[in-house]
Amino acid sequence: TRQYRITLLPGDGIGPEILAVTVDILKVVGKQLEIDFQFQEALIGGVAIDETGKPLPEATLKMCRSSDAVLLAAIGGYKWDNLPREKRPETGLLAIRAGLNLFANLRPATILPQLINASSLKPEIVQGVDIMVVRELTGGIYFGKPKGIFETETKEKRGVNTMAYTESEVDRIAKVAFETAQKRGGKLCSVDKANVLDVSQLWRDRVTLMAEKYPDVELSHLYVDNAAMQLVREPKQFDTIITGNLFGDILSDAAAMLTGSIGMLPSASLGLEKPGLFEPVHGSAPDIAGEDKANPLAQVLSAAMMLRYGLNEPKAATKLEKAVLEALAQGYRTGDIMSDGMKAVGCKGMGEVLLRI
Amino acid sequence: TRQYRITLLPGDGIGPEILAVTVDILKVVGKQLEIDFQFQEALIGGVAIDETGKPLPEATLKMCRSSDAVLLAAIGGYKWDNLPREKRPETGLLAIRAGLNLFANLRPATILPQLINASSLKPEIVQGVDIMVVRELTGGIYFGKPKGIFETETKEKRGVNTMAYTESEVDRIAKVAFETAQKRGGKLCSVDKANVLDVSQLWRDRVTLMAEKYPDVELSHLYVDNAAMQLVREPKQFDTIITGNLFGDILSDAAAMLTGSIGMLPSASLGLEKPGLFEPVHGSAPDIAGEDKANPLAQVLSAAMMLRYGLNEPKAATKLEKAVLEALAQGYRTGDIMSDGMKAVGCKGMGEVLLRI
Ligand SMILES: CC(C)[C@H](C(=O)O)[C@@H](O)C(=O)O
Ligand SMILES: CC(C)[C@H](C(=O)O)[C@@H](O)C(=O)O
Repeated sequence: TRQYRITLLPGDGIGPEILAVTVDILKVVGKQLEIDFQFQEALIGGVAIDETGKPLPEATLKMCRSSDAVLLAAIGGYKWDNLPREKRPETGLLAIRAGLNLFANLRPATILPQLINASSLKPEIVQGVDIMVVRELTGGIYFGKPKGIFETETKEKRGVNTMAYTESEVDRIAKVAFETAQKRGGKLCSVDKANVLDVSQLWRDRVTLMAEKYPDVELSHLYVDNAAMQLVREPKQFDTIITGNLFGDILSDAAAMLTGSIGMLPSASLGLEKPGLFEPVHGSAPDIAGEDKANPLAQVLSAAMMLRYGLNEPKAATKLEKAVLEALAQGYRTGDIMSDGMKAVGCKGMGEVLLRI
Repeated sequence: TRQYRITLLPGDGIGPEILAVTVDILKVVGKQLEIDFQFQEALIGGVAIDETGKPLPEATLKMCRSSDAVLLAAIGGYKWDNLPREKRPETGLLAIRAGLNLFANLRPATILPQLINASSLKPEIVQGVDIMVVRELTGGIYFGKPKGIFETETKEKRGVNTMAYTESEVDRIAKVAFETAQKRGGKLCSVDKANVLDVSQLWRDRVTLMAEKYPDVELSHLYVDNAAMQLVREPKQFDTIITGNLFGDILSDAAAMLTGSIGMLPSASLGLEKPGLFEPVHGSAPDIAGEDKANPLAQVLSAAMMLRYGLNEPKAATKLEKAVLEALAQGYRTGDIMSDGMKAVGCKGMGEVLLRI
């Protein structure tokens, strides 16, 4: 029996519901494959603010560090939206990324044939779309200094953030991206704004240099404005995309929305060592929290990413992925992906379907 | 007779062809409405680099400053892509924006019923889309300092750019945006990343403050990642969008691509005083340059924006816009917007059609 210690971070809104469904399935799959998951739970986001005054309590970070993987659900809600930035749920998310050194964020945008009509794009445009965005997650303008609101000589306020990357920061994410592309379609598109930004020029130079080590990967470059266009125009041209923190935030969300079913998309955040952090792309959906309406599938698929990328348990990962596909094939749908003739289920109901499969 | 001095900047690639068609039409409309356009031509972009070594020669800027409006076609091409940044065509574009203090960039993304099938989105999603992106154009990370590639203590290189806005920079673009929204659907969506960036927090605070002066405009805020999603998901929810330089670059291109016919989209760049600069959203298309294949309609519509926003000649503007719509209604199409059963024309051919109307 393999043993893994998993830190669960249910967070806010629909977080606890979708995570509960996922844990049930992990337990069953664990029994089937002789994997012993030891779950421990901690606070992050709004609930953490309410209970401790901080969006990422020190105890949470410590527990995460002592575990093999972190499974996060969702954070945030209207309630905490007007607090000062250091007390907002999002700040907890940024802090855990930095605290665990999770510099590589993998965000797949895959269109499932069963859900093709959920897309706002024409079916022939999105059919077969299978993009992996590799986003740098602990650098760039999210963390660069100086930052803040300062006073100018003329006594006006000036807001400042710094977009910066060092060579080694680019190199380590580029390595992840080239290796990811190798395991996928062998195509890597690096997105920057090198025609305007110095930081992008450095980015482009280092990615180009790294390409020499991966002759089997076909590297291309796009400016971020053009990349946003091309994602809308012809998303099938993309296989793996590598980009910085801010551009990755924007483009991975645009790519996710091409599929029309953001309630289906997982993500993985990885460092050089364990633990990685795994979470759905969607938010905490406070408007439907506690109503048993949430779609738990992105969370289940995030657990699959945890098994595949975080714990090297590909068999277990495949079991989860197959269960999700089978549930869709059998016509089960939560409200967000419901369509004519399908069988409506709630969050728990979907969980039961998955367990039956 | 009103007299206007117009500086023409044909630039590179298809620039000269599309501008020639546009000038012919301006002359005819000028005669009809007793407007005397005095055209003068200057160098910018790649041709300027070839002839003078600089992407924006001093003489060009001087000529622009002495004119009532600047009509730019397109710049750039493979030939100049590998020059150092200060010698690239794009640098000329940034320099003319800064040099003429063109802080307000208006980018409409309108879907024409005749071209609805050109969109990669479903017709019911894009039908009726009519978005105006108001992009700040002379501040933000495009011009912020410090910028450059520096050496760290550990002797690695670090690329740095600074995203910064002062209160007055936000205020002046916000004013333009609120007034634009007032003349349109009365809805303004401000896009930032205030959950992460200090500069965005300042932006949001100032835009919110400015809203008090425009009680007839309904203001909302979106984070840039969500805005990219919403543009793909349901573009009709947007009327006027205000955002900073970098986010505006990305989102206006994404919005443009929703229409599926970027060869149709004009833009206006305005300062507090004349001259404004008017140019198509599309690029210089070096692959089809000189082949009489280019679509001149975005350039013609840019001239219409010049008449409307730059010279306050709304009648003449309407004439140009009507001619374009009528040419489409009569079934004339250049290659980029061709579809079954339509009449194929080249760049010059389209110009002749417009003159006949
Ligand atoms: C909540 C926010 C800070 C976060 C980000 O910008 O990274 C989110 O948008 C994401 O993409 O995970
Ligand atoms: C060519 C480039 C410098 C420019 C920009 O980024 O502003 C272009 O993309 C635009 O949007 O006009």
